[in-house]
Amino acid sequence: MRDVAVIGVGLTKFGELWDKSFRQLIAEAGSKAILDAKIEGKDIDALYVGSMSSGRFVDQEHIGALVAEVSGFSHLHIPATRVEGACASGGLAVREGYLAIASGMNDIVVVGGIEKMNDVGGSEATEILATASDQEWEAFFGATFPGIYAMIATRHMHEYGTTKEQLAQVAVKNHANGAFNPYAQYQSPISLESVLKATTVAYPLGLMDCSPVSDGAASLVLCAAEKAKKYTDKPVKIIGSGQASDTLALHGRRDICTIDATVYAAKMAYKQANLTPKDIDFAEVHDCFTIAEICAIEDLGFVEKGKGGKAIDNKITTLDGSLPVNTSGGLKAKGHPVGATGVAQIVELTMQLRGEAGKRQVKDAKIGLAHNVGGSGATCVIHIMEAM
Amino acid sequence: MRDVAVIGVGLTKFGELWDKSFRQLIAEAGSKAILDAKIEGKDIDALYVGSMSSGRFVDQEHIGALVAEVSGFSHLHIPATRVEGACASGGLAVREGYLAIASGMNDIVVVGGIEKMNDVGGSEATEILATASDQEWEAFFGATFPGIYAMIATRHMHEYGTTKEQLAQVAVKNHANGAFNPYAQYQSPISLESVLKATTVAYPLGLMDCSPVSDGAASLVLCAAEKAKKYTDKPVKIIGSGQASDTLALHGRRDICTIDATVYAAKMAYKQANLTPKDIDFAEVHDCFTIAEICAIEDLGFVEKGKGGKAIDNKITTLDGSLPVNTSGGLKAKGHPVGATGVAQIVELTMQLRGEAGKRQVKDAKIGLAHNVGGSGATCVIHIMEAM
Repeated sequence: MRDVAVIGVGLTKFGELWDKSFRQLIAEAGSKAILDAKIEGKDIDALYVGSMSSGRFVDQEHIGALVAEVSGFSHLHIPATRVEGACASGGLAVREGYLAIASGMNDIVVVGGIEKMNDVGGSEATEILATASDQEWEAFFGATFPGIYAMIATRHMHEYGTTKEQLAQVAVKNHANGAFNPYAQYQSPISLESVLKATTVAYPLGLMDCSPVSDGAASLVLCAAEKAKKYTDKPVKIIGSGQASDTLALHGRRDICTIDATVYAAKMAYKQANLTPKDIDFAEVHDCFTIAEICAIEDLGFVEKGKGGKAIDNKITTLDGSLPVNTSGGLKAKGHPVGATGVAQIVELTMQLRGEAGKRQVKDAKIGLAHNVGGSGATCVIHIMEAM
Repeated sequence: MRDVAVIGVGLTKFGELWDKSFRQLIAEAGSKAILDAKIEGKDIDALYVGSMSSGRFVDQEHIGALVAEVSGFSHLHIPATRVEGACASGGLAVREGYLAIASGMNDIVVVGGIEKMNDVGGSEATEILATASDQEWEAFFGATFPGIYAMIATRHMHEYGTTKEQLAQVAVKNHANGAFNPYAQYQSPISLESVLKATTVAYPLGLMDCSPVSDGAASLVLCAAEKAKKYTDKPVKIIGSGQASDTLALHGRRDICTIDATVYAAKMAYKQANLTPKDIDFAEVHDCFTIAEICAIEDLGFVEKGKGGKAIDNKITTLDGSLPVNTSGGLKAKGHPVGATGVAQIVELTMQLRGEAGKRQVKDAKIGLAHNVGGSGATCVIHIMEAM
């Protein structure tokens, strides 16, 4: 397998983007990445696009070819493929792009991720998101994702003594980081009190424990590592890629406080990178709900199982902690246009590893990890990256 | 890049399968392929599933992980990814599975394709299929796929003198082949007269010029070619894989009678296989409408542009012709569960190249080609296969 590097990145602002269409968003992110990589359309061998439910959010399937077209490349007839794995769609698109180059088939691949969620109403968005859960065993009975993650949180509190305050501290930290990210949906710090006092969505999760409904797109240019320096002085290499699956419904899992898909995907990625969790300098993890970040840092091996809450108390994961987590603001503050999230995580890793993350720059960032989850953990995809 | 072979295939019957669920269908096709390949769950490195619009047809996205689960593999945490490119979703899933092995990342990959289209009403199915066309420039104005292909047919008749009788002969031929396929939705021959007299859907296309709304699933086991003989005496190698894109809407194309995505994908696949159209012994092409088969045999280089109708007259593409096309019955008679189609085409190629196609067996079949199209030609994926 050939080594693969990121040579360009692009993001739109995340948020409620009423004045921009699906087509405009993906074209904006893609053209930024292409300009950043200093490539032209004719250099692109393939396109991969991650989107969870464009068919339901904007009535448009077949978006691989559409993205090639709205980017101005239809005359080049570039192979263009959409990849889906619920909220992990973006990370899966990165992985397919990575494989297309690693195989030797392609030299340069553009990866995009997008979701335009606000064109439907809030309750319809929740219903569409529930198509990522098990329709027959969960959604049919009214279990939406806040309810599913609330069950995980309740059990985590029962098993390990995790507190509502620890959950809230995840939101406070991620909003503090988001305040330094000009692309974030929310760029203002919030207080612990405001999180704790927010309306309950599904106990113990309040409104401020939940990531928002967002519009946005992200894009990357991937290149065979041996050719990357032709395009940029600062290529960032993908040194590990892992993916795993589990049951769609929570009831089939070995332990609802452990996302086994994360455990197995991490094992695969660490093995390929020849690293252990201790070697990771910073991480973007899938904090769709505050409890999800606590489970993630445990399942990724950063702390022992059950010690995630304590790690938040001890400020390990803050921007100046020993392992900064979600420097971008995470899904919580940066926003969570579901198909874009996994790609945007790689954008953040790339910016950090290039030393271009501004006020949220992690000192001496050498190795970063991105952790992208679909549903309540039926899909997980992980990438580990290092500056070349 | 490593060579890749098919070592197992599985199909469900295609049709209006009221008594089988989405989950049952994909599990049935997958387990048949796995039994055919004589592998076990622990041998599988990855799963790819093609489906166009499971989110709208059965309210379920995130079907990669679901397929792993309903196949009984959730405890193995196998990476599972859904791939979408409208009616080319199946072919794209094959290509991603192919790349995963060619890259050296995986040794054995299971590929599935599925659509369960009859759980919604007929008019809703047409509306869902229209999400593969351009929502803003076509579907919004009421152009559904029969109308779009009717425009292609009308222009082809005007430019090249193609006749309604030639279109009808495509349906007659494919039904004759389908009569020999126990998995086909329609297993009875039809007369030229019945096609010509059928209700007009969109002139010049009548009901019998259109592929049906179908339920069904198909599956393959792919293996690194160097290891294939461990599992089967009759591996079938993928010797060329090509993919290309074009505008979603017809109005953006250079020439509406030519599917340029086919032209470019074919060029890529022929180049990789080091073959020309003359070397192909038989083909499965994407006959979603009869005119589509005529365009396909032209765009694949089997006959000159404009001579597709004449080729049908001359019986070149019949089972005993010089280039049998759609020996399975094609989308027209075998049925067209859209996400399954591209995978089912590879199943047919494999059966023919193994010499297991029964009454529809092509004599001395050595090299076969599968041609899978999304929408009206915005995506095309082509595979060329040869017995090892």
